[in-house]
Amino acid sequence: MLKFAMFGASRIGAIHAANVAQHSGAELATISDVHRPSAEALAAKTGAKVVDVETALADPSINAVIIASSTDTHASLIEASAKAGKAIFCEKPVDLDAARVDRCLAVVKECGVPLSLGFNRRFDPSFRALQSAVAEGKIGKVEMVCITSRDPGPPPVSYIKVSGGLFRDMTIHDFDMARWLLGEEPTEVFAIGSCLVDPAIAEAGDIDTAIVTLKTASGAVAQITNSRRATYGYDQRIEVLGSTGMLKAENRTATTIELSNGEGVTRDKPLNFFLERYAEAYKAELDAFITAIEGGKAPAPTGEDGRRALVLADAATQSLKTGAPVKV
Amino acid sequence: MLKFAMFGASRIGAIHAANVAQHSGAELATISDVHRPSAEALAAKTGAKVVDVETALADPSINAVIIASSTDTHASLIEASAKAGKAIFCEKPVDLDAARVDRCLAVVKECGVPLSLGFNRRFDPSFRALQSAVAEGKIGKVEMVCITSRDPGPPPVSYIKVSGGLFRDMTIHDFDMARWLLGEEPTEVFAIGSCLVDPAIAEAGDIDTAIVTLKTASGAVAQITNSRRATYGYDQRIEVLGSTGMLKAENRTATTIELSNGEGVTRDKPLNFFLERYAEAYKAELDAFITAIEGGKAPAPTGEDGRRALVLADAATQSLKTGAPVKV
Amino acid sequence: MLKFAMFGASRIGAIHAANVAQHSGAELATISDVHRPSAEALAAKTGAKVVDVETALADPSINAVIIASSTDTHASLIEASAKAGKAIFCEKPVDLDAARVDRCLAVVKECGVPLSLGFNRRFDPSFRALQSAVAEGKIGKVEMVCITSRDPGPPPVSYIKVSGGLFRDMTIHDFDMARWLLGEEPTEVFAIGSCLVDPAIAEAGDIDTAIVTLKTASGAVAQITNSRRATYGYDQRIEVLGSTGMLKAENRTATTIELSNGEGVTRDKPLNFFLERYAEAYKAELDAFITAIEGGKAPAPTGEDGRRALVLADAATQSLKTGAPVKV
Amino acid sequence: MLKFAMFGASRIGAIHAANVAQHSGAELATISDVHRPSAEALAAKTGAKVVDVETALADPSINAVIIASSTDTHASLIEASAKAGKAIFCEKPVDLDAARVDRCLAVVKECGVPLSLGFNRRFDPSFRALQSAVAEGKIGKVEMVCITSRDPGPPPVSYIKVSGGLFRDMTIHDFDMARWLLGEEPTEVFAIGSCLVDPAIAEAGDIDTAIVTLKTASGAVAQITNSRRATYGYDQRIEVLGSTGMLKAENRTATTIELSNGEGVTRDKPLNFFLERYAEAYKAELDAFITAIEGGKAPAPTGEDGRRALVLADAATQSLKTGAPVKV
Repeated sequence: MLKFAMFGASRIGAIHAANVAQHSGAELATISDVHRPSAEALAAKTGAKVVDVETALADPSINAVIIASSTDTHASLIEASAKAGKAIFCEKPVDLDAARVDRCLAVVKECGVPLSLGFNRRFDPSFRALQSAVAEGKIGKVEMVCITSRDPGPPPVSYIKVSGGLFRDMTIHDFDMARWLLGEEPTEVFAIGSCLVDPAIAEAGDIDTAIVTLKTASGAVAQITNSRRATYGYDQRIEVLGSTGMLKAENRTATTIELSNGEGVTRDKPLNFFLERYAEAYKAELDAFITAIEGGKAPAPTGEDGRRALVLADAATQSLKTGAPVKV
Repeated sequence: MLKFAMFGASRIGAIHAANVAQHSGAELATISDVHRPSAEALAAKTGAKVVDVETALADPSINAVIIASSTDTHASLIEASAKAGKAIFCEKPVDLDAARVDRCLAVVKECGVPLSLGFNRRFDPSFRALQSAVAEGKIGKVEMVCITSRDPGPPPVSYIKVSGGLFRDMTIHDFDMARWLLGEEPTEVFAIGSCLVDPAIAEAGDIDTAIVTLKTASGAVAQITNSRRATYGYDQRIEVLGSTGMLKAENRTATTIELSNGEGVTRDKPLNFFLERYAEAYKAELDAFITAIEGGKAPAPTGEDGRRALVLADAATQSLKTGAPVKV
Repeated sequence: MLKFAMFGASRIGAIHAANVAQHSGAELATISDVHRPSAEALAAKTGAKVVDVETALADPSINAVIIASSTDTHASLIEASAKAGKAIFCEKPVDLDAARVDRCLAVVKECGVPLSLGFNRRFDPSFRALQSAVAEGKIGKVEMVCITSRDPGPPPVSYIKVSGGLFRDMTIHDFDMARWLLGEEPTEVFAIGSCLVDPAIAEAGDIDTAIVTLKTASGAVAQITNSRRATYGYDQRIEVLGSTGMLKAENRTATTIELSNGEGVTRDKPLNFFLERYAEAYKAELDAFITAIEGGKAPAPTGEDGRRALVLADAATQSLKTGAPVKV
Repeated sequence: MLKFAMFGASRIGAIHAANVAQHSGAELATISDVHRPSAEALAAKTGAKVVDVETALADPSINAVIIASSTDTHASLIEASAKAGKAIFCEKPVDLDAARVDRCLAVVKECGVPLSLGFNRRFDPSFRALQSAVAEGKIGKVEMVCITSRDPGPPPVSYIKVSGGLFRDMTIHDFDMARWLLGEEPTEVFAIGSCLVDPAIAEAGDIDTAIVTLKTASGAVAQITNSRRATYGYDQRIEVLGSTGMLKAENRTATTIELSNGEGVTRDKPLNFFLERYAEAYKAELDAFITAIEGGKAPAPTGEDGRRALVLADAATQSLKTGAPVKV
């Protein structure tokens, strides 16, 4: 039985809390949040106690933590948890600064605790099945990975300002998927981008529309297309071309109904956003973490996976700025 | 080189005329129509000569006829053509009266000429591929055939009055498909029907909505659902359940485009009606006829196929009237 | 907070138990099963107490029951629960005998307790959305309902022997869907059927393949096609043709992946069986029941819905036996 | 009535010849080919006369030419035809060298004859419908164009050696589509590529796998993914993201059949290659050319469209070589 402390009673924290509560092999013991009413509201729903971070970390009966607080607190909470000997599940990213990530991961390594990053998409049933099929050789050698990743609408500009920019905030998930599916590290990154959705995003120094291309040492290529606005829902598709075939994962819909009339044949649009699309993935990633820790195995995706995705995001950011491809 | 006389310069006649004109192994020599201007218009497009039926049949250089005139003329034109020794391609049906069909087929048999009925759906690329897959055993033994057959809208009531009724006019195609796919003769027919589309159809003594169920000696079952109105186009689908799998043929569309927006994901509706949906089938059925005649083989579907479909239509008509299933 | 007693620790009971356990407005207090180890195993997972039926019904703190025991116990458990003043959620059917159902429903009525039948399909997100769209007039007036309902494989013959036959065991769900979607009572039933899957089913006096047609007073028609074997999974589709359009609900799949290679383009087959396909429906039906009871409203589907579906199943059974349509 | 001379009795020439032959407003008068037996074979099928180029151009009754000979002859045949005052339909490209194209187009301009390039994809029913929907504002302002373009297998290396390289030979069609759909000129091109399919292609100095990204002055972006090998057929898809929606055009298949069994649900793979996929497009582009010339209007796509696509192909070639984006 894994006993968890939760840091951060945010929307995503609430999801993890509910999933821990429903898991037969885990228990949510405590919740901490700088905004105490949030912690209390979530505690009321889950039966956990509200405590401060120090108390949680000092409790020897707690053997794991979930970090779902704001991004700027991740690295220090990871370090504190590592020093307290807890197994760590942390929402991505470790930090927006690669050097800070390095220092943080060094602490984790030194403390010898397991750390897993919340790259939830690896646990989406369709993406997982796709990756398994690739790994089983169903399409031969991977030659090209195409990732479509579009949000239904942009976040508030206040969020964009502290997000680290599109590539570190949004594309970082796609970089992780690209690495996972290529089965090989990208060595070159080129990015183009524009602000087409909302001028306020440009004023905040960011873009909302982008295309990133990647190339690996073996010559495999990948492309990621992003937009902060898809009026038809959360557009999350992947396509992998291999030497003997092609695999795709399409969007998911709430229902399978279809209306035929004089206008055409209309079916449901994709599920609205990540909470709906990745509901099963959130459950599965936590289950995988619990299973790994209980079984004494290293959980994945690792802190190193988080670092590498960030390195690609940094390279894309630099490419966008310089207008030239960047070697990684 | 097969030299054709065409009887009937109707819409369907015009299609056959164009297909003969484009065929490298055939030539359209003459066109006859009781309405001479129609014949002349079609002749102008195809380079054929306008002659009367007797002249065409008396021409020894003509070795085949296409009968595309009104239904009530089919049987006597078939008989006259048979006596003149021509190979005969006739639009369905031979006649609306089974006894008349029998007499007509007896003449054809006596004259020893080849006769094929225009059951065009057997030549639709998708239905043909489906039937081939069934015949190759891709789904094991056939257990259930489901045919969806709906017109975009009803014909004029004046047509309905002389049509022989829904089962002889419209369902007859579906009866042919059912026989073809079951690979076995239905021995029992049950039909229910209603007039839901237009009360004028009921006043004309007909129905516009129907469900027919069939059963064969081996216990295989089939169902046909008909409507004279599908606001989304010509709905022509087939599904065959077998002991080891299921085969479907879906509708065809003019394009493959798809619009995603806040309303949903909308693609093209089915092709509008038989001229569009079965354009390739009309071409293929004529090609098959020409190839068979040139190769000295019996063309199919045969006159007997026409007779058997009519027998099923008669049985359905009787079932509807009596409210009881009818043995065939 | 609704406090439940569960009667029957079967596979379906376990599902309801888990759904009650996860529901914030309900609590599973007790479990009863003639096979005590089953009850204990389920109790261990859910924290409920194992008690006998009498004890549960005598407990005034318990205000609702879930009946998930074998079919032959349903009617008497409903009656006992009704007399104890509990709100009742019962798996379909009330009983296989219509007269027994009548007596049971009379008791329920007399006791004035709410009763809902587990017609889970009404709560499937796709079927529910389809029915809502029909009810909102998206396709005008309903003219034809087509239900495809095929199991992945037959149950053991031992089960078939006590099942009441295909129409009362399997088609009963489809009869409920037909009534729900037609928005009107069928007045005529005709059924054909065969034993094509396993001769042992015929020896047990049952069929495994069937087509049922229904007609209502207004002339709307419906057809249901059943098979006990679909090698490609649980085939559960619905199609409704209306005066201004058509609505379909397609099968659901575990993933959206698609493999393209020289063989074709292959996607997932349908979910395997009812536990997978209707997992969300089981959750939703219980939630609807709890919400209705807590809100003082009558839950649906009602006992009367159960009775009417059984009447149709009886009519289909008689039609199969007599070879003639049956008026209802 | 347009009277055509055909230069080049190649595979693609044969298609155009058949389409002219079937067109009611055109006639194929002559065929010329350096390989006289090819010309004679095609002449035998179409009834055209075999003559040399000079004779054809000197014939005042001929008012249009179709150039379907090898690429290296295009520019001079265009010039000769222009000087002879013929309307010109030429297979893409005008030439592989941009300077040569400029000189050729100058001659055409001076002679004042109409010239159209065979960018057949603009006439594919699905792509055409997609572009029309974009032009009608169905998705608001165009933000991103994604083009998937993969051949079923590579051409012979001997062909690759004279092809001008992947971007000038294959991607040039995609550049034309990108320009057409963006409705704006790309101003920046970046390309990455690899040789993954056949090392002999690398030895010939070419690549077989590529990703190209484009950016326009307004900030709209486009990406093209190419491969010389798709084991599942000719993969030709387009997706356009706009401010209010998204439009896609999917692949086309020979049939709509679908096989469901224990392995999954399998439908047809895409049509095999351009002859099948673009059969309708070839017909439509010639019809559009004939209609334009007969109506005294300028046919499209124009020589300038050809030049601009080549400029993008050159830029991509340079980007691949230098590893840097290229301004256009």
